[in-house]
Amino acid sequence: MTNPLDFQAWAAAGQSRIEAVLQKLLPAPEIAPQRLHQAMRYAVLGGGKRVRPLLAFAAGELSQADPERAALAGAAVEIIHAYSLVHDDLPCMDDDVLRRGKPTCHVEFDEPTALLVGDALQSLAFQVITEFKLCDDAAVQLEMAKLLAIASGSRGMAGGQAIDLAAVGKVLTVPELEFMHVHKTGAIIRAAALLGLKCGAPVSAGEYAYVDTFAKLIGLAFQVVDDVLDVDASSATLGKTAGKDAEQGKPTYVSAMGLSRAKAFAEELRLEAMKSLDSFGERALRLRQLADFIVLRKF
Amino acid sequence: MTNPLDFQAWAAAGQSRIEAVLQKLLPAPEIAPQRLHQAMRYAVLGGGKRVRPLLAFAAGELSQADPERAALAGAAVEIIHAYSLVHDDLPCMDDDVLRRGKPTCHVEFDEPTALLVGDALQSLAFQVITEFKLCDDAAVQLEMAKLLAIASGSRGMAGGQAIDLAAVGKVLTVPELEFMHVHKTGAIIRAAALLGLKCGAPVSAGEYAYVDTFAKLIGLAFQVVDDVLDVDASSATLGKTAGKDAEQGKPTYVSAMGLSRAKAFAEELRLEAMKSLDSFGERALRLRQLADFIVLRKF
Repeated sequence: MTNPLDFQAWAAAGQSRIEAVLQKLLPAPEIAPQRLHQAMRYAVLGGGKRVRPLLAFAAGELSQADPERAALAGAAVEIIHAYSLVHDDLPCMDDDVLRRGKPTCHVEFDEPTALLVGDALQSLAFQVITEFKLCDDAAVQLEMAKLLAIASGSRGMAGGQAIDLAAVGKVLTVPELEFMHVHKTGAIIRAAALLGLKCGAPVSAGEYAYVDTFAKLIGLAFQVVDDVLDVDASSATLGKTAGKDAEQGKPTYVSAMGLSRAKAFAEELRLEAMKSLDSFGERALRLRQLADFIVLRKF
Repeated sequence: MTNPLDFQAWAAAGQSRIEAVLQKLLPAPEIAPQRLHQAMRYAVLGGGKRVRPLLAFAAGELSQADPERAALAGAAVEIIHAYSLVHDDLPCMDDDVLRRGKPTCHVEFDEPTALLVGDALQSLAFQVITEFKLCDDAAVQLEMAKLLAIASGSRGMAGGQAIDLAAVGKVLTVPELEFMHVHKTGAIIRAAALLGLKCGAPVSAGEYAYVDTFAKLIGLAFQVVDDVLDVDASSATLGKTAGKDAEQGKPTYVSAMGLSRAKAFAEELRLEAMKSLDSFGERALRLRQLADFIVLRKF
């Protein structure tokens, strides 16, 4: 049932598709202002596992979504994600120089350009989610755009960043950590799954809630795994600077519960996420495989 | 016909209305993350002439738009404008300490918070433009959100900023200056007028184009006046640091054509803008008065 080769082929096809869509959505490098467009493309293209778009594809399979529509919804989320990385890496935030194995945007270009790259990418994400027909019902598509806006904003991703900033140097409890990550990374991961789902036929409120729960748990697992990898893996494996969390005094699941307990917690979250998919049967195959991919990726 | 007292009362009522709407749209300061929400409110509330929302109201009068809808559309544009000011003032951009007579956001709070304030405000603007019913036709409202996204992005405001950055220390011709400003400030001013118009009954393509032309010319005039005031007025009058343009080696209409020619150019633009409203007759009263307000405000 869960033939890993099959999943790898599916994921590779999805990654290729999303890369092609992003290539087309991003303004061409020769269009003015050229340097900004070159930097936007640098920040988005040719890197990342594209987990969020894959979640949009996989959730879209539950509602028979047209994969072209799910790709555009996933691309909008991926563009939001890319903008957040560019701004996170800025000197006034994490001050990081390496991302996806390449110099960060402000290192490769310059700081004001990186600031504008993030700003313009966020606008582009909302252009994508409103410009193309992603759903037969325009009113539902407006809800999709609103969902992305809330997930990105002060009660979603940007708010999670603010909580993260305030937490540096502090000891957080596990519930406090969860609150931070549900916002910082979880909101956008949930948006990816829910937007993919909404590209297709309407689903029941119950089914919608199951997918939301799944995405919430997987989003959290994703962060726990990230914290584990920051301790456990090398910069070369990560494609970003390893050990930064401890160095910057950031509270992590590893600092809150220790390495082996954090690994076990990721596994618990994965199993709980799987349970929320029970009612979908075979239709949720790709979501299950993605959960495995996210949690089991490196250890 | 153009009784100035009457306009002042209309503008004051519009400013009060938009302030009340912004108060409600911005997350309350006691909602977590509190500091971010406090900083967002600091950046948006209690300042500015609200020219963009007033344009949305005035254009909405041409299409019998419900003023509540025009207020929300205007608020979305004002929130985009406010975010752009917060990011422009950052140390890596204009490095300004005074805005609307108050310390800039990164001075009053801190730099990472100001970065996130801008990011979260942009998300909020797209939440506003998609969350409330601004138009009877959801498909048209999707177009409105798309219009705001394009106006904000790399081929609009953010792109104009990038052109501005690249121009520091250079001598620009008047057409080059125009290209920069049509993007940097013009795109959002046009969006304000067009979104206000779209809140009401559908208008002909010709009428839409007239309003667009008007807004484009007034947006340019607004910038020329800004350049003039940067030379001609004190910091106290401006509520921001005067003389910064020359100090930072920024090309302006004053540096390109001299002070008196720049003043005359603003007046030419105003008259040309007025002409584009001829076919609307009395319905365009407020737009005409706004044009006067924008161009004649201080000299």
